[in-house]
Amino acid sequence: MRLRASTIKGKASTEFRRMLTEGPWPVVGMWGATAHHAQLTEATGFKYFGISGSHTASHLFGLPDAGFMTLPEIVENTRRICQAVSIPVIVDCDTGFGNAINVVRTVDEIIRAGAAGLFIEDQVAPKRCGFVKGKELISIEDAVSKYRAAVDTRDSLDPDVIIQARTDARGAVGGGMDEVLRRCEAYLKAGVDSIYVEALQSVEEIRTVREAFPDALFKATPYAIEPAITAEEISELRLCMTGPQIHKIGAVAMYDFLIDYAKGGEKVFSDWNAKTKSHPLGGFGMFDLTGFPAVQEMEQKYLSPEALERYENSLGVYDPRTGGSAFAPAKKTENSE
Amino acid sequence: MRLRASTIKGKASTEFRRMLTEGPWPVVGMWGATAHHAQLTEATGFKYFGISGSHTASHLFGLPDAGFMTLPEIVENTRRICQAVSIPVIVDCDTGFGNAINVVRTVDEIIRAGAAGLFIEDQVAPKRCGFVKGKELISIEDAVSKYRAAVDTRDSLDPDVIIQARTDARGAVGGGMDEVLRRCEAYLKAGVDSIYVEALQSVEEIRTVREAFPDALFKATPYAIEPAITAEEISELRLCMTGPQIHKIGAVAMYDFLIDYAKGGEKVFSDWNAKTKSHPLGGFGMFDLTGFPAVQEMEQKYLSPEALERYENSLGVYDPRTGGSAFAPAKKTENSE
Amino acid sequence: MRLRASTIKGKASTEFRRMLTEGPWPVVGMWGATAHHAQLTEATGFKYFGISGSHTASHLFGLPDAGFMTLPEIVENTRRICQAVSIPVIVDCDTGFGNAINVVRTVDEIIRAGAAGLFIEDQVAPKRCGFVKGKELISIEDAVSKYRAAVDTRDSLDPDVIIQARTDARGAVGGGMDEVLRRCEAYLKAGVDSIYVEALQSVEEIRTVREAFPDALFKATPYAIEPAITAEEISELRLCMTGPQIHKIGAVAMYDFLIDYAKGGEKVFSDWNAKTKSHPLGGFGMFDLTGFPAVQEMEQKYLSPEALERYENSLGVYDPRTGGSAFAPAKKTENSE
Amino acid sequence: MRLRASTIKGKASTEFRRMLTEGPWPVVGMWGATAHHAQLTEATGFKYFGISGSHTASHLFGLPDAGFMTLPEIVENTRRICQAVSIPVIVDCDTGFGNAINVVRTVDEIIRAGAAGLFIEDQVAPKRCGFVKGKELISIEDAVSKYRAAVDTRDSLDPDVIIQARTDARGAVGGGMDEVLRRCEAYLKAGVDSIYVEALQSVEEIRTVREAFPDALFKATPYAIEPAITAEEISELRLCMTGPQIHKIGAVAMYDFLIDYAKGGEKVFSDWNAKTKSHPLGGFGMFDLTGFPAVQEMEQKYLSPEALERYENSLGVYDPRTGGSAFAPAKKTENSE
Repeated sequence: MRLRASTIKGKASTEFRRMLTEGPWPVVGMWGATAHHAQLTEATGFKYFGISGSHTASHLFGLPDAGFMTLPEIVENTRRICQAVSIPVIVDCDTGFGNAINVVRTVDEIIRAGAAGLFIEDQVAPKRCGFVKGKELISIEDAVSKYRAAVDTRDSLDPDVIIQARTDARGAVGGGMDEVLRRCEAYLKAGVDSIYVEALQSVEEIRTVREAFPDALFKATPYAIEPAITAEEISELRLCMTGPQIHKIGAVAMYDFLIDYAKGGEKVFSDWNAKTKSHPLGGFGMFDLTGFPAVQEMEQKYLSPEALERYENSLGVYDPRTGGSAFAPAKKTENSE
Repeated sequence: MRLRASTIKGKASTEFRRMLTEGPWPVVGMWGATAHHAQLTEATGFKYFGISGSHTASHLFGLPDAGFMTLPEIVENTRRICQAVSIPVIVDCDTGFGNAINVVRTVDEIIRAGAAGLFIEDQVAPKRCGFVKGKELISIEDAVSKYRAAVDTRDSLDPDVIIQARTDARGAVGGGMDEVLRRCEAYLKAGVDSIYVEALQSVEEIRTVREAFPDALFKATPYAIEPAITAEEISELRLCMTGPQIHKIGAVAMYDFLIDYAKGGEKVFSDWNAKTKSHPLGGFGMFDLTGFPAVQEMEQKYLSPEALERYENSLGVYDPRTGGSAFAPAKKTENSE
Repeated sequence: MRLRASTIKGKASTEFRRMLTEGPWPVVGMWGATAHHAQLTEATGFKYFGISGSHTASHLFGLPDAGFMTLPEIVENTRRICQAVSIPVIVDCDTGFGNAINVVRTVDEIIRAGAAGLFIEDQVAPKRCGFVKGKELISIEDAVSKYRAAVDTRDSLDPDVIIQARTDARGAVGGGMDEVLRRCEAYLKAGVDSIYVEALQSVEEIRTVREAFPDALFKATPYAIEPAITAEEISELRLCMTGPQIHKIGAVAMYDFLIDYAKGGEKVFSDWNAKTKSHPLGGFGMFDLTGFPAVQEMEQKYLSPEALERYENSLGVYDPRTGGSAFAPAKKTENSE
Repeated sequence: MRLRASTIKGKASTEFRRMLTEGPWPVVGMWGATAHHAQLTEATGFKYFGISGSHTASHLFGLPDAGFMTLPEIVENTRRICQAVSIPVIVDCDTGFGNAINVVRTVDEIIRAGAAGLFIEDQVAPKRCGFVKGKELISIEDAVSKYRAAVDTRDSLDPDVIIQARTDARGAVGGGMDEVLRRCEAYLKAGVDSIYVEALQSVEEIRTVREAFPDALFKATPYAIEPAITAEEISELRLCMTGPQIHKIGAVAMYDFLIDYAKGGEKVFSDWNAKTKSHPLGGFGMFDLTGFPAVQEMEQKYLSPEALERYENSLGVYDPRTGGSAFAPAKKTENSE
């Protein structure tokens, strides 16, 4: 159930495919772990939300990105997030959770959970974060069989969903740029919509991939590149999508607050409350983000006038009848596509 | 499974009861919604973590705190969080999810999930956040029957677990200070360990409750009080526990980043990355927080030397063999109590 | 993911509505608790499968039907069952798990899980089985507000889904035949597709309801009626649907086997195995029911010829290449609607 | 929460280890998929309940036993079953769901869910039922690393839990009796409590294993052996445990009923109801099995006298105040260990 107003029209997968194929590139979204991260992303106008496997593991389970996550845990979180926002959601599906036959179940479940896109990587299981040492690859044949299974399953459920093949061949044992190119070619030939090359080490390496596949929907994450890639380079290299990890922004801010509070005590929090009083997420602003006023609209529609008198006869800092200044709630039963 | 080192000895519930009964008051912890929030809280030295129902609804589901959450959703999150940290975890159980008989199942499940404490409030279902208009109360008899059921169930499973009765009588329809005092007395008589009075409107009102129950374990949340309560007042009033909501700190920081990034683009993120490079949670510091190095320790223990050669033969910004500077991982199989 | 072939064409909800509105009445299905019960029902040619709240509680949780089940537990089981069969699935939603506002979430989740129909009853929470003493009712106004919320939510998601109002007014405190008629009228006026009157005490009482609402989609369960209602009476009274509880059939048979085995030991089981050797569900016939041969079809499509050599080079009583005599598996990627 | 009376004293894992180590052999239990299967098993006096992976896949998901099940799905079902009965529960953990590091998480979660024992097999993932063609093995070194990880994790949580190593080496590609013996030796040396050899083809083969490991806790499933093994042979071979699959008994009975009902209609069900009227599981006997009378005991303890008047003032075929003839409910708050 979603209580926020929709920000897109039509089916999220259709819209996601349109954005990626028609451009302009890059399509800009955010990556994170929870429905809250997704609602912040939607409320500030970004185009898609990406569910990061790494952030899901650390945020929801307190575990490192080392192959501990399982399909049902990812599916359940995907379902919650796809319910919480209207913008397209793309899902990190790790290795696909088994061989090509398991990939059939994985893609089936992720699409039914509401995803507009997903990617599967070519690491052996248990995988690890693409920027961590110790990565290994499955054979190109086994990877191709997974992507073929993914594409067929997608075709039978919703042809608009984007299937992206991620290769970790740049940094993995036995990998390198030649292996990257060989794998991208094989994966595109297997029918995936998009390639995603993890951990390229320089802008030049990104350029090499782009030149080898001039028309491909091509994603690259730049976190091994120094100095940092610029917006101009992203644009010139025609990377199809970008998106920071907002979970990290929150983590640093919370950590700093905790250190300050450990020293300064309650005053640190009351000062912060005073400072953020009129911030859209200060006070009880979170309620507006989730669409709390829509609850009161539903109550007016379904409950008796007597039941609603409680709003007059009770105390509260937050009044759902006047909330909602910062973020738009859904109108009545618009809480569904 | 927890890969972080334990910060407490013994059972969390025993430690929580000891801290609350022996003092010093207030016991200082943090409230939030996820395993990540709990690990940040533990890593910065706080004494307990509280799972906020309001924050769970907004963070994991994108829903307002208006009675949508159900028992299994709370239990699953409790289990994940209690696995992720060693410090005591106290859980917001809303109305207990039904009548006294349902409370038996609720307390049973929450304790089995690993909680060291829990509170149940005296609102009618569906409830709403204690600072929101429109709250209503169940009868004092029905509330007492729930607390008796909670205490008995606790006794049969783990007598150390703290049962806290929360009353929303200050702000609810038909409520007021007299009703608060009447209910606190009845709930303490029913055997709860602690009272929690929501939405008191002034320091004077807190004092009134404290004076009526001079020895009680008494919690009050001060978010309706202006000017903000001070550490000195908290201390003088002998409130047994305090704890800010760190979820909000993260929300404001992420929102501000999103607005900046929407304007300034990729440079905003690379600047942030540069600025936080040596921050404990910058770069891939999150992996340290979750105890990633313990994975590599387990690999050394269980996998063949050949399997470990991959660390030499692969590229990665993060190396689990040298990570772990900022936060202590578990030693080998210490990932369990 | 479903590996069995579909037995219906088109959307299950559309087909369910067509069957109920076009007849012939009664539409005959079965009630039970699990995907296995549903697959047995589909494989033997019945028209729909009903998920019984009572059987779900006892089968999956070992709990009585007394208001312990929660929304997510029902939703998850609904999702699994709707994946496992193609025939329409109708879901017992107890009281709707809260007030009218909670009903919005309930109907939203149950429909998204794949249900073709659902019913909500007018008992107070926690409810109990309709044939158990101790039932109480909510007010007619509160019930109507739930059904209005259910119908609106359904309209916004899938107008074909059947919303059925169940009244327990016959046996509940303060109830009786007059109350039954009053409530049926109010619920039909609120827009539900069908009424379901629980625990009517005689064929005459069923006739009274039928005569009061001559054109309504009307369900009645006859388990308080002695002597048992006949097929001719069901037909003459134009009850819209019937369906035994197959869970009970299994329970009695398993109990009797356990008692026999406790006395006779291993020979009892080997005799049973010998006797059922050529039964469709004897030996490893269960694998055929689930569509195991479709796994091998997928393997032939996606895996390498070398990978398939293992079938020649391994031993097994069951060979997925030749299984499937009793039940039809899905063709290749037909594992989706 | 369990409402049935406990049938064992003390911790289930301690009791399970005692039974297996002190004998007499075989310890006789039953295998199935759900809490209902476990309660039937307990109510008829058997010593343990085994959660079969194959039956869980088919019963709860309608899927074949071919490596589709995941850790959280197995854990959740284990938790429900361990709540529903007091007798020891042993859990089929397939391949352990990954490598030795994943096995740490698997064993941790299964033990926390309440299991008294578990087994992990030496097949490659995705696995298949041990009686199905197409099985393949991981290397003996990789298997040993999993069992070492399992034993260490068990030691840190509950040393009484039984860890059983299952080898599929008899029927898998490259396997045979020599490989069976080689693997059993290695696994016992790795510290497992018990070996489980799947799909031995004759009584002689069982004897060969028994003679090679005269003192081992040794389990063998006889479903590839013709003629069927006898109780005397089981005893003479000192197999440590036996247990039929009761799920199959129910499946055959339900299938036969469905075929009959499809032909004979409602009369078939009313005849069955008449015939089973005084059967412990006939009528509403299922409620007794789950311990329904304990609900009413709790109500008497916690609810007001007025609330209990509803039993006098409502109709019902089943009265929880007089139910419970067939099976013993828990006394008051005995619903927990």
